Amino acid sequence: MDTLSVRTGRREEMVNVTSAIESLVEEKGWRDGVVVLHCPHTTAGLAVNEAADPSVARDIAAALARMVPREGGYSHAEGNSDAHIKSCLAGTQLMVFVENGRLMLGTWEGIFFCEFDGPRSRKLWAKWLPGGGGEG
Amino acid sequence: MDTLSVRTGRREEMVNVTSAIESLVEEKGWRDGVVVLHCPHTTAGLAVNEAADPSVARDIAAALARMVPREGGYSHAEGNSDAHIKSCLAGTQLMVFVENGRLMLGTWEGIFFCEFDGPRSRKLWAKWLPGGGGEG
Amino acid sequence: MDTLSVRTGRREEMVNVTSAIESLVEEKGWRDGVVVLHCPHTTAGLAVNEAADPSVARDIAAALARMVPREGGYSHAEGNSDAHIKSCLAGTQLMVFVENGRLMLGTWEGIFFCEFDGPRSRKLWAKWLPGGGGEG
Repeated sequence: MDTLSVRTGRREEMVNVTSAIESLVEEKGWRDGVVVLHCPHTTAGLAVNEAADPSVARDIAAALARMVPREGGYSHAEGNSDAHIKSCLAGTQLMVFVENGRLMLGTWEGIFFCEFDGPRSRKLWAKWLPGGGGEG
Repeated sequence: MDTLSVRTGRREEMVNVTSAIESLVEEKGWRDGVVVLHCPHTTAGLAVNEAADPSVARDIAAALARMVPREGGYSHAEGNSDAHIKSCLAGTQLMVFVENGRLMLGTWEGIFFCEFDGPRSRKLWAKWLPGGGGEG
Repeated sequence: MDTLSVRTGRREEMVNVTSAIESLVEEKGWRDGVVVLHCPHTTAGLAVNEAADPSVARDIAAALARMVPREGGYSHAEGNSDAHIKSCLAGTQLMVFVENGRLMLGTWEGIFFCEFDGPRSRKLWAKWLPGGGGEG
């Protein structure tokens, strides 16, 4: 397991971590398989979405904020229940395909660390699962 | 990595792709492991849900449309921000267990390609991860 | 593939199954890899979130109930469309890292079986994928 550091700068922010994952794959020499990503925090998440136009990530964060208001009569006393709920909606895990040592993503896709209770210093875990080379 | 084609016929549609994945597993001779599915599009997603009654898939699409209105004061200029947000909510990746060459799904489960900005010609990526045979 | 049993006691309930997964990993002797979890039911889901304060899990269940009302003019005749939709939002699959035979989770994280149409006797499937030992 490898651990990456992510520094977030606002309470809600989608940080593009694609190049950090690319660097990890290159550094480790991973060739064919899947990088599994896990966000070990309960008020953040992970998502694959459009990286070309940064307004998409802002629209996603704003839509989640509308769907899950910060003040909502929650019972959790720390005042960040909305962040826990958004983490559940976005999900905290991803799988990224690697072929011939190269990260496989769609044309417009990027990998985002979704901060819902920042700014904070966060961790992102990565684990390598080797592929089957197309054989059963 | 293998690539399947999915043709969607409406703006929002949940297309049952279970038999296409079953055919792929059979064709490749995959026996014991996990098929990882990745949707390389940022306005579509993947979900496992009830396939027996098609009204369930329609209810899911309608509920997402209610939660994420098409017009919502979004900043992304292409007019499909709702589709990006729904993609984030549904998720773009799945794992399907294969045992003895057979796709393992619950009694009522099917695998759905979730179109949120169709109709379009879409791709669905599949990668094989061999299982550990129950050993550590 | 291994099958765990989960007994839920209410219509909506997040059941902490972390120790059951820990016991499985120990019993099987799994050392380095990923446990893939799949919920074979279409009205339940899986999530990783805060386990320390049980009010967080209650807040998540309550927020989902607010976002997806039980009565919503659904077409599915069984009266549990809200549960299918919540299953799609929470997701039905998880991956849990195992290193040196130990489940790797963040400080506050636990693994939850999310019941949306209980009380019922449920199943939880687990499949082992061996890690690559950091090598490509």
